[in-house]
Amino acid sequence: MTAIKYELIKECSKTGARAGKIHTPHGSFDTPMFMPVGTQASVKSVSPEELKDMGAGVILSNTYHLFLRPGEDLVKEAGGLHKFMNWDQAILTDSGGFQVFSLGDLRKITEDGVTFRSHIDGSKKFLSPEVATKIQMDLGADIIMAFDECVPYPADHDYTKQSTQRTTRWAKRCKDTLTRTDQGLFGIVQGGMYKDLRTMSVNDLKEMDFPGYAIGGLSVGEPKDLMYEILEHTVCQLPKDKPRYLMGVGTPDCLVEGVQRGIDMFDCVFPTRVARNGTAMTWMGRLVIKNAEYTRDFRPIDEHCGCYACRNYSRAYIRHLVRVNEIFGLRLMTIHNLYFLLDFMRKMRESIMEDHFVEFQNKFLANYSH
Amino acid sequence: MTAIKYELIKECSKTGARAGKIHTPHGSFDTPMFMPVGTQASVKSVSPEELKDMGAGVILSNTYHLFLRPGEDLVKEAGGLHKFMNWDQAILTDSGGFQVFSLGDLRKITEDGVTFRSHIDGSKKFLSPEVATKIQMDLGADIIMAFDECVPYPADHDYTKQSTQRTTRWAKRCKDTLTRTDQGLFGIVQGGMYKDLRTMSVNDLKEMDFPGYAIGGLSVGEPKDLMYEILEHTVCQLPKDKPRYLMGVGTPDCLVEGVQRGIDMFDCVFPTRVARNGTAMTWMGRLVIKNAEYTRDFRPIDEHCGCYACRNYSRAYIRHLVRVNEIFGLRLMTIHNLYFLLDFMRKMRESIMEDHFVEFQNKFLANYSH
Repeated sequence: MTAIKYELIKECSKTGARAGKIHTPHGSFDTPMFMPVGTQASVKSVSPEELKDMGAGVILSNTYHLFLRPGEDLVKEAGGLHKFMNWDQAILTDSGGFQVFSLGDLRKITEDGVTFRSHIDGSKKFLSPEVATKIQMDLGADIIMAFDECVPYPADHDYTKQSTQRTTRWAKRCKDTLTRTDQGLFGIVQGGMYKDLRTMSVNDLKEMDFPGYAIGGLSVGEPKDLMYEILEHTVCQLPKDKPRYLMGVGTPDCLVEGVQRGIDMFDCVFPTRVARNGTAMTWMGRLVIKNAEYTRDFRPIDEHCGCYACRNYSRAYIRHLVRVNEIFGLRLMTIHNLYFLLDFMRKMRESIMEDHFVEFQNKFLANYSH
Repeated sequence: MTAIKYELIKECSKTGARAGKIHTPHGSFDTPMFMPVGTQASVKSVSPEELKDMGAGVILSNTYHLFLRPGEDLVKEAGGLHKFMNWDQAILTDSGGFQVFSLGDLRKITEDGVTFRSHIDGSKKFLSPEVATKIQMDLGADIIMAFDECVPYPADHDYTKQSTQRTTRWAKRCKDTLTRTDQGLFGIVQGGMYKDLRTMSVNDLKEMDFPGYAIGGLSVGEPKDLMYEILEHTVCQLPKDKPRYLMGVGTPDCLVEGVQRGIDMFDCVFPTRVARNGTAMTWMGRLVIKNAEYTRDFRPIDEHCGCYACRNYSRAYIRHLVRVNEIFGLRLMTIHNLYFLLDFMRKMRESIMEDHFVEFQNKFLANYSH
């Protein structure tokens, strides 16, 4: 019995792209899918109902942040993350590894785990494969992640090898800790920019037979061509009957490249973060709503977009709200960007179903400016 | 022909309280009514749909702020304020007088009008009865307000008399400026804390036969008893067949006292402002959601409240969101406070309709702690 089941529905005849469905204890969602990020048990500024309206079937939340505030014990007492935040569809939690390793000088790594200081009050904390898994069991997400080290870029072959092997040992300890049968634990492939280490990581993890595999350690500062090369090398070695998740990637061009190589799931704070900075995502590229040219522009952000913001409000109005720091402006921008990205994934999926993915990709790239 | 029509439906047999309906070119709303404030063409953090769901039939927006940003010409070009902000029900705009006079040293008053410096960029601006009325014609609200001076507290009899007489002369100039027949201009009674001057102001304004009368210059720092005394003295001299609007008042105790004396309309930033500071309004008094006692309190803010926040979220969750500065927390708090106040007015109106207003008032005061 496994909590997470991947159903492969259609493969592209020309690329690695594939359409599928992931079944979880809190409903199913179509893939390829983008997962909006609700760092602190809330996708910034929007409601669960708004997320459902835009077609989000799964969201991501962060173990590191919830561990610090409000604490996983409180979330457990509330009945778990779904109930706490009023979201009855699928949730994925990361392991906290990425955030902890990002703390730099504030953390110390041993084989056992990572000691670090809270970025909020400086208090001493400890995360390990066991602790991270137990926290995620208390939170109760449908998909949980193994505790790993995201190898920084650049890193030499020696360090990357040691780190990747430790990540594999940690994955085993996570698996041994998990006792809930309604949660699926994904292994995370590391290996930096070294193909031999990526292969090693994939093979080691495959032996443990996880219900899904994530690819970590990409989009960490390396050139995009290198990222795509490592991605391609890695994905094609992963089992076909399990979901594949590319962590921390969410710009349209990277999403297309990821799907082309066979990725099913993505997450990124990009669409919600740039929304709050006044940048709208469109099929043509980015639109900076604060620019003077939109002062008296009474068209919607995107005339072909079906989101709540585009159906009801003009660029001029949203620009006004953003300029005067009205919260509703951030909300409209966030709704637009998430809707755009979810719609983008829907259309990409449709193109795979109709075996027109390459045409979709070419048309997108012809219109999109970076 | 008049744009605004007041329909008196029921009078309390023991107090001055009354239930009615105000008809505007953008629909009708029941009175007594509280008007949520959308200072910059947005009721902070909430959508028009959310406002309708909680029963708001009229909102207020501020001429001073819209004059500075985005400018009334832009709003006019957008098709007016209703269309600009996607609100198809009634809107009231103030005249900008209150904000301009609040600028203190930054403004200079003459018989002609007020020269002031923008609080945003320091640029020199001018508002007068004619300018304020023309701006409000461009904005296109259903109910617009005469340009007045809100007499500060305390002020001596001489100054108050001069200022009040000027406000009356300005009201005449506003009336002469208004050419749109789909807007109703309300006169504003001033007179400070002096009964003779309040009587003078009422009589002078009544001669001009406005479709509604506001009472300004109260709730400006004077003791509440004095406010109620002046209010009572003023309201009973106003015509029965016109709506009466008490400006800038929005705490539950003041709303009850105002309704008791015959007020039909209220506005205040209080419910939305304290919401953003983490204070919820309830029938028992204020609830400070950040307090430690709510950390593991999984009940809603108010178990008897029917608002979206109380139907779906716990005190513990909302407390978490507010503590970690999540925008959705402000949204839930704002929704709760506005719903509470609109529900409070609905129940007060029902008590008038059933001639149980005094019982409502006594029961409310017995349970409410300040």
